[in-house]
Amino acid sequence: MTIERAERLKHFSEYYFSKKLKEIRQLIAAGKPVINLGIGSPDQQPPQQVIATLKSGVDAADAHGYQPYQGIAALHAAVHGFCQRYYHVDTSALQVLPLMGSKEGITHISLAYLNPGDQVLVPSLGYPTYTSVTKMVGGEPVYYPLQENQNWEPDWEWLDRLDTSKVKIMWINYPHMPTGTVASSGCMERLVAFARARGLLLCHDNPYSLVLNDTPQSIFSVAGAEEVCIELNSLSKAFNMAGWRVGWLMGKPELVAPVLQIKSNMDSGMFKPIQQAAVQALQLSEEWFAQLNAVYRKRRGLACAIMEALGCTYETDQAGMFVWGKVPSGTGEELSDRLLYEHDVFVTPGFIFGTQGKAYIRISLCSTEEVLQEVMSRIA
Amino acid sequence: MTIERAERLKHFSEYYFSKKLKEIRQLIAAGKPVINLGIGSPDQQPPQQVIATLKSGVDAADAHGYQPYQGIAALHAAVHGFCQRYYHVDTSALQVLPLMGSKEGITHISLAYLNPGDQVLVPSLGYPTYTSVTKMVGGEPVYYPLQENQNWEPDWEWLDRLDTSKVKIMWINYPHMPTGTVASSGCMERLVAFARARGLLLCHDNPYSLVLNDTPQSIFSVAGAEEVCIELNSLSKAFNMAGWRVGWLMGKPELVAPVLQIKSNMDSGMFKPIQQAAVQALQLSEEWFAQLNAVYRKRRGLACAIMEALGCTYETDQAGMFVWGKVPSGTGEELSDRLLYEHDVFVTPGFIFGTQGKAYIRISLCSTEEVLQEVMSRIA
Repeated sequence: MTIERAERLKHFSEYYFSKKLKEIRQLIAAGKPVINLGIGSPDQQPPQQVIATLKSGVDAADAHGYQPYQGIAALHAAVHGFCQRYYHVDTSALQVLPLMGSKEGITHISLAYLNPGDQVLVPSLGYPTYTSVTKMVGGEPVYYPLQENQNWEPDWEWLDRLDTSKVKIMWINYPHMPTGTVASSGCMERLVAFARARGLLLCHDNPYSLVLNDTPQSIFSVAGAEEVCIELNSLSKAFNMAGWRVGWLMGKPELVAPVLQIKSNMDSGMFKPIQQAAVQALQLSEEWFAQLNAVYRKRRGLACAIMEALGCTYETDQAGMFVWGKVPSGTGEELSDRLLYEHDVFVTPGFIFGTQGKAYIRISLCSTEEVLQEVMSRIA
Repeated sequence: MTIERAERLKHFSEYYFSKKLKEIRQLIAAGKPVINLGIGSPDQQPPQQVIATLKSGVDAADAHGYQPYQGIAALHAAVHGFCQRYYHVDTSALQVLPLMGSKEGITHISLAYLNPGDQVLVPSLGYPTYTSVTKMVGGEPVYYPLQENQNWEPDWEWLDRLDTSKVKIMWINYPHMPTGTVASSGCMERLVAFARARGLLLCHDNPYSLVLNDTPQSIFSVAGAEEVCIELNSLSKAFNMAGWRVGWLMGKPELVAPVLQIKSNMDSGMFKPIQQAAVQALQLSEEWFAQLNAVYRKRRGLACAIMEALGCTYETDQAGMFVWGKVPSGTGEELSDRLLYEHDVFVTPGFIFGTQGKAYIRISLCSTEEVLQEVMSRIA
């Protein structure tokens, strides 16, 4: 007897990393000393105060019951304070909705706003989840090209010409993954103006703002952005808490309400001690980021040296936890496979972020200097 | 400028409790001493060893990164051991997928198996989320009546006559919420036979099995069930861990694979210290449940006395964390509103579980004996 899976599953495969990590585990089980420079899971520890807060939080008698979907007031206040301190923007009129990471928010937003057949503007290159979730809810991804020779910003002429009558959502993500690009001055303003002119929901996915980035920015810095924007953020990368599953969504109450409606039918509120730990993290001083980025800066230097040794071209000032580089010849997938099978090193092939990424590879900075040096010695 | 929400949101409202709890918070803020006997959020503490395991787990250096979607091996083993000890069934050939509670699993399963227009058999009475999630993914709920005078089991003749050519999923839930009914001998077998004969995916939602129930049962106790069944389970009620968001889904690998495919595109693996804490809980001795149920048994006695005082009719041996009763006249909603506005006591009106529930109310056992006695004195 066969019970057929839904049609939507035929449009996308198991998340690439899910399958690739399985293969890597099998190689390691078979005795291969594989070094994984693929996925961006921070190897460093969360702040000690954050761990301590979780531990004391779980001792409270009121820690264990269902929590309101909207999250605790202290978390709302901490998020607004964080946005003020690091993005220099007053978000107090906006609503904060705790999420299990920004990835979960992509599904919630898509379910809240997309009807079957609606189009979604997805950056190419970009995070594959925008595509898979759009297809999962019956929407149609429309890829808008980012221009390699223009700081990986949108092709504005292409966008101007685009018929957006069926477009409902536009995804943006700066600092941009996988290219590590920080949006230039005016880029965000132009995106907000485009979304307002076309009546689109502009969703800014902003989890990398505090990593190797001297100019952290919220979309809400742009005047009038709150009319059409939702922003996703996460503690995963900024505080080495990827496994904790904590992030948030922010927007004006009218735009958040449909997402809350979806969420309240899908799951329950977030574990209170994790919310309390998140409050602690968001209140840390800038010293935390100075230390975090000192480590990533050294690693970025080594990752650039690996790119150099592989004959790749790359920018030295990339933001986020990766270095993105163009291979000297052939495809990134060929180089990735060669590194995996000949040198026991996995780097992410660029094609998984879009066809424009075919000639690229991406190196994660989530390994120690010693590990990155070991990679250097293997490929030298 | 207005950005339209998705059509699917017009088919269901914000989860009833989300709105009602907001009203109750407002009443309390206005000085009303409201006692909430509505939602089933355990007020007792999780096992101390479970809290201790979370605290030591979070000290490990490898606790903080992304986790595999499939969960840690120790959790799989603990779930299989739990099923053997309490349900007397060998589930070792089945796959375990950790979930943030069984509620989340309803969405994952629905996305994995339903195409727009597919029908879903939903118990009436039943948990409202089966309906809202079915509609959310474009499916059509078909309500199969449970018979009040037949132990709230399905109307088998009605099912036999039903054209199931468009039905893909059938939801079942015993011990049944909201009626507290334990399935009689043969009921599960008949359900599995029906699902096999009609080629349906039979999804058993089983979070109440260990609460005030002398005969805990898994659907996999039924021979051949693994061909067509998925079972959801949760630590929320069994271990007073509702806020922790931990449960699991179980089924043969071919039936779990589509759910994993959805999940890997929607979120990430579960926080490792919470998985470790769950392992600790699942390995507890039967003494835990003896203590837990001693407390609930006393409270059930008091809830029955409240039902008596309200002139309701009810069964005294209900399983789960609620007592369900039929109001003497009028509707459950009228009685619920009268209790809230005249006596500052909230009980759940039965209509939210289906039209057959109109004449009922439900009292939660998640308050202390003192609180239940205070309710008695208020309504006396």
